[in-house]
Amino acid sequence: MSGYLASVVMDFRLIQTCPDSKARTGELITRHGIVPTPVFLPVGSQATVKTLTPEELKGIGIPMVLANTYHLYLRPGVGVIERMGGLHKFMAWDRPILTDSGGYQIFSLAALRQVSDEGVLFRSHIDGSKHFITPELVIQLQETLGADIIMVLDECPAYDDSLEKVQTAMVRTHRWAERCQQAQRRRDQGLYAIVQGGIFPELRHQSAKHLTSLGFAGYAIGGLSLGEPKEVTLDVVKETVSLLPETKPRYLMGVGSPEDLLEGVARGIDMFDSALPTRVARNGALFTWQGRHNIRNAVYSQMGQPFAPGCDCYTCRTFSAAYLHHLFICDELLGYRLATIHNLNFIHSLMQKIRNAILDGTFSSFKDSFLASYRPTNEQARLDQKRKWFKSRNLSNK
Amino acid sequence: MSGYLASVVMDFRLIQTCPDSKARTGELITRHGIVPTPVFLPVGSQATVKTLTPEELKGIGIPMVLANTYHLYLRPGVGVIERMGGLHKFMAWDRPILTDSGGYQIFSLAALRQVSDEGVLFRSHIDGSKHFITPELVIQLQETLGADIIMVLDECPAYDDSLEKVQTAMVRTHRWAERCQQAQRRRDQGLYAIVQGGIFPELRHQSAKHLTSLGFAGYAIGGLSLGEPKEVTLDVVKETVSLLPETKPRYLMGVGSPEDLLEGVARGIDMFDSALPTRVARNGALFTWQGRHNIRNAVYSQMGQPFAPGCDCYTCRTFSAAYLHHLFICDELLGYRLATIHNLNFIHSLMQKIRNAILDGTFSSFKDSFLASYRPTNEQARLDQKRKWFKSRNLSNK
Repeated sequence: MSGYLASVVMDFRLIQTCPDSKARTGELITRHGIVPTPVFLPVGSQATVKTLTPEELKGIGIPMVLANTYHLYLRPGVGVIERMGGLHKFMAWDRPILTDSGGYQIFSLAALRQVSDEGVLFRSHIDGSKHFITPELVIQLQETLGADIIMVLDECPAYDDSLEKVQTAMVRTHRWAERCQQAQRRRDQGLYAIVQGGIFPELRHQSAKHLTSLGFAGYAIGGLSLGEPKEVTLDVVKETVSLLPETKPRYLMGVGSPEDLLEGVARGIDMFDSALPTRVARNGALFTWQGRHNIRNAVYSQMGQPFAPGCDCYTCRTFSAAYLHHLFICDELLGYRLATIHNLNFIHSLMQKIRNAILDGTFSSFKDSFLASYRPTNEQARLDQKRKWFKSRNLSNK
Repeated sequence: MSGYLASVVMDFRLIQTCPDSKARTGELITRHGIVPTPVFLPVGSQATVKTLTPEELKGIGIPMVLANTYHLYLRPGVGVIERMGGLHKFMAWDRPILTDSGGYQIFSLAALRQVSDEGVLFRSHIDGSKHFITPELVIQLQETLGADIIMVLDECPAYDDSLEKVQTAMVRTHRWAERCQQAQRRRDQGLYAIVQGGIFPELRHQSAKHLTSLGFAGYAIGGLSLGEPKEVTLDVVKETVSLLPETKPRYLMGVGSPEDLLEGVARGIDMFDSALPTRVARNGALFTWQGRHNIRNAVYSQMGQPFAPGCDCYTCRTFSAAYLHHLFICDELLGYRLATIHNLNFIHSLMQKIRNAILDGTFSSFKDSFLASYRPTNEQARLDQKRKWFKSRNLSNK
């Protein structure tokens, strides 16, 4: 890639690294503005971060969101969005957008998949209609949508697949990544590769090496947080990051719990996305600096104070915990909104504190003190819940 | 009531009457501000106008909302709201509120009703728990909630009940109204009576005469818009209004379609409430000056313009019809919000135009020209829909 092209495509500027961890701050430079990293991207699969308006997201300070090519390809169709002037205009969001390629969704949501080297044939999870997707088509769709960062098509094996199966998927993902690169026409979108290889260090090594040799605008780590133990996730992240170039952004897909964000940043990750903060909000689970608590709990029924006293989000500035509890008990839609605002504000504040701590050289102590007071959701409960969730394929938020 | 008390309680100031109809403009003067009439009150039964924040309601210009004693008595309980500092503070709404007594809900939602002169025994539609409500209790509950306007407990017969049945209910409603009046302790809330009598002119006559002789702050017309033909509704309204005092506000309960608002105003009504504009919004039915249209219709799937070009609501200022269509097709919660904003903005604009026309002396021509271009929902479809709706008791919005 020539120097000229490199300056036009999505760029990344490293600002500061942490002296005693791999944590770092930087900036993604895009056509729609600069995004400070490490950054968390709320998930807006269907061109809407569930329940919220663009103005509410901006009010929280969200700099960038994720949308999903698979979902938008099926509904309303990429052609419709093109005729509406592109994805930014369609969803009235003038800040940066990343579109996921849809690989993950095809392998988790769609039915009757037939993968070949050419591409993947699947049936829509909505109406059963048949579709054939190739790496070239995925790039064309994402160029039409017009996001600032776009992703290669990848094949996602299950977290407990055999080495052979994972290796086959990885090799195919590498070939597809190359085809995506060759198919790219627009130079104002950053194309990110996705490192695969499951929980096998030797495969992750091969994958990172192969993809970095091709030269992408950024590197995502895919195929994690799919039900494997957290220790394994973090080890794979550490191994993989060590093989990625310093000068390019690293994106850990599907991670969004507060403790995982901190651990990811400590291992050198710059970007995250996850439906978790917004999905659990709609179930009534709200973040505090001490852990996640469910607003449906009777303890909140008479609480005149805000859910999280001192929290500066709209919800906590305006309403009592008792009111929020009442809305959830009555299944009132306003409750889902207010909880979503609170959770996204919490995660956004956390990322801000993380960035400030890295700049101040105090990231490690910030991380220690956060983890000392924050009680994560019980690991076994988390895994059970996650596996159940994947099994039910109730992935409507992803 | 002494002159002193009269000046402290809810007051009404008549400003102008229409030369060729009964239409009039005025002002309700309350502790929480002045409300220009004719006014439409959005329904927030459970202390929330479904999907919207107080700020959004204010952004539209909504001056006053309705909440429901029956719903709030069951959840979260009136005691909780008292401890939270009253209903205004609980729902973070500092403009006027009217609480309905719950009479209508007890007779439409609750199960196993046993009505006696003393009061009404019913089972909660939520958990089947047994409750005994009296006129005195209803006043006490509403004094605790602290709305600006409160309503007497009434017995609501079905629209097709016999004259004898309707008469019995009416006589009881009269006795209950007197007991409500005697039970009232707070003098800063306006207590409104509810004229009953079904579709029988002679009963309406008796009811209006009896209740006005008792002297209330305002008079509601209840027991209408329950499935009877629209012609009948309008005749009863006309008859009843002619028997009510000029100096007091008149409130037609449960009416909220654009054409009915105009007809009600023309017959001298000052206040309306209905869940219709918000309920149909969540079904995708949006108002235009030509009639109601459903955003799910395929005609909107490719429309780059707003749903109602020229409309000044947030939804139409920000998004294309195609985007709103997409949200509804995907059952995205943001769609329900955006449609609710549009419909409430439409009704609010309509009421503003009505008030201006009365002030300008052009109400009759405004009404004619509105009705010439606005195509109401087909009368038979409307009745069928309404009866089906009442039958299913799916009154979650009321």
